[in-house]
Amino acid sequence: MKAERAELSAEEKSGHKLTDGTSPILVEGRRVLLIDQRLLPDKTEYFDASKIDDMCFAIKEMVVRGAPSIGVAAAFGMASAAFDAVSRCHSSGRFIAALIQAKEKLDATRPTAVNLTWATEKMFSQAEKLVKQELDASDFEDVAEQLFRFALRIMGDHLKVNKALSDFGSDLIPKDARILTHCNAGSLATCGWGTALGVIRSAALKKLNPSVFVDETRPRNQGSRLTMWELTRDGIPATLICDSMSGQLMARREIDCVIVGADRIAVNGDTANKIGTYTVAVLAKHHGIPFYVAAPLSTVDPAIASGDDIPIEFRDSAEVKSIEGHLTTLKDANALNPAFDVTPASLISAIITEAGVWRAPFDEAIKEAFQIKSSQE
Amino acid sequence: MKAERAELSAEEKSGHKLTDGTSPILVEGRRVLLIDQRLLPDKTEYFDASKIDDMCFAIKEMVVRGAPSIGVAAAFGMASAAFDAVSRCHSSGRFIAALIQAKEKLDATRPTAVNLTWATEKMFSQAEKLVKQELDASDFEDVAEQLFRFALRIMGDHLKVNKALSDFGSDLIPKDARILTHCNAGSLATCGWGTALGVIRSAALKKLNPSVFVDETRPRNQGSRLTMWELTRDGIPATLICDSMSGQLMARREIDCVIVGADRIAVNGDTANKIGTYTVAVLAKHHGIPFYVAAPLSTVDPAIASGDDIPIEFRDSAEVKSIEGHLTTLKDANALNPAFDVTPASLISAIITEAGVWRAPFDEAIKEAFQIKSSQE
Repeated sequence: MKAERAELSAEEKSGHKLTDGTSPILVEGRRVLLIDQRLLPDKTEYFDASKIDDMCFAIKEMVVRGAPSIGVAAAFGMASAAFDAVSRCHSSGRFIAALIQAKEKLDATRPTAVNLTWATEKMFSQAEKLVKQELDASDFEDVAEQLFRFALRIMGDHLKVNKALSDFGSDLIPKDARILTHCNAGSLATCGWGTALGVIRSAALKKLNPSVFVDETRPRNQGSRLTMWELTRDGIPATLICDSMSGQLMARREIDCVIVGADRIAVNGDTANKIGTYTVAVLAKHHGIPFYVAAPLSTVDPAIASGDDIPIEFRDSAEVKSIEGHLTTLKDANALNPAFDVTPASLISAIITEAGVWRAPFDEAIKEAFQIKSSQE
Repeated sequence: MKAERAELSAEEKSGHKLTDGTSPILVEGRRVLLIDQRLLPDKTEYFDASKIDDMCFAIKEMVVRGAPSIGVAAAFGMASAAFDAVSRCHSSGRFIAALIQAKEKLDATRPTAVNLTWATEKMFSQAEKLVKQELDASDFEDVAEQLFRFALRIMGDHLKVNKALSDFGSDLIPKDARILTHCNAGSLATCGWGTALGVIRSAALKKLNPSVFVDETRPRNQGSRLTMWELTRDGIPATLICDSMSGQLMARREIDCVIVGADRIAVNGDTANKIGTYTVAVLAKHHGIPFYVAAPLSTVDPAIASGDDIPIEFRDSAEVKSIEGHLTTLKDANALNPAFDVTPASLISAIITEAGVWRAPFDEAIKEAFQIKSSQE
């Protein structure tokens, strides 16, 4: 089997230095390799996540990160678990039980991004479809193979979805726009093209000449490490700033709009995203600057009415107390490390999805889109 | 001559673990030693800034930092220049010319904090008073000695001023207040007790039980390195957060008020302070949380009508691209590094000084205070 990853056609890339965006997941045969995003931009190394436990570790420790990418990664985790179950589970019941266990393990790795459970649920319900009755032992190998191909399809769909939403989003970008983004919602986070960075890429393809201010995004520095790397590879002008600097840039009228990704969107439009997003949204509102969220429909959680119900992951305080392993405060210092915050719908100018651009009130658009989505599946 | 530094009386310290606050400047005979604040909290090392060029380096490179502290440091720089001029300049004209040159060097080190030129001007006008006529060569030694003692007095005054303003400020602090501060406006920044941290210290002395959220303060990490160190030494509960986290804490009603220091205050109350202060002020306004500035009168620039006229220092972009020497992005990345921002008076609930607590409109209070101050001098 040839190596598979999302890629742009030559035609799509023509006339611009734009790459396909680096896909964070490389599949070789049944091996699932992840670009170790902890090491970028210093080193490009692959982490073998072909075993379910390694995949759980990779998601938890942010070898792979970004809501859509961890969804795809979790789908491959489910497929790995299925291959693993073939030799151990000689009944449909045991096979399904092994997948339930795998799903629980994967779902427990990170609580905020809904794409993770979205993907494990899709994989699990596909497994249930394939294991409708008691199968022979020899059939499980075929089921696992079909699940693996289903995970590949989920990955492949992401590029199409990202390109579709990016195309919608680029209509919102004025010529020569100076755009602020927070964290990394690029190809690394989304398995190709990107959501927030996808909109910027599409604007660049349309020769709108965007330039980007990139928030460092403490404590894990996804902005300085990943977004700067992606934009530089694509030849899109990018300027790194500390998270504390965007306010003053807005006051000086040096930012025309803000675009960020999302980890979970409630039905009312409240959006969880990387810690610091809420601050940027308040600043944008204060300065009358449009604040856009770009995300696939798989980021919307139709089971959650508002942001109050989104679980927020708190990570190890060591991340705040140190920077890439170097302690910056007292060893015993107390520190707080919420990994996400919730931006209320009232601060969001538009949500950009593959179903189009939604404006407030979002709940109607979201309900409608989910009917569309349901009828397409 | 015994070592001089600002110190609290035993009585003042009684009943609390509170220290005098670590004075950043230690004077031994004619030697001026600075705690190297670049190395805290890992190491406590002294930097010999007895020579004017070493003092200029120390201010520019932030061995010593904080608006009031760099003012005092510059005063000692002027005194050092006077000692140095004794053997070289055998006329009043040459002696004064040497001091003018020293003043120009010192004033050029950092542009935003007005305390620096406030101090060099005070020292220079004192020199002019002492050198009224043509002096004998032997008299210059005495003039230099008097200038050195004048610098010592400026340093000593800071503790009194800080304690006075902190006492006023502590009246604004409710019992069990959860206070957010940005950067370091503690004893290290102000030659004893502190301004923003001074108010918190005074609240602790009054047994008001304050606790503090400490912004990391990228790119130089004064919050994680210096403020956490000071508060921990005083036994005041402190929690480190990234600069991007205070917004969500405010939304969750976990912050009762904000106190920061200042580098320059215009006559209308607009205040320059460490980059990120403006963002915190916008967030506080959005959440209806009081935002206080604590600063000595020497931080007010009566020559500047509004924040538009405050010069903002841009520092080397390497500070943003790396964290304590470790590169966090691409080597050739473009980065922006404004060291300060301006918070408009409209976002400031009160300015706390040794002349009392000012409320908006600030211009009347500031004009009045400066008349008071002028009559006292």
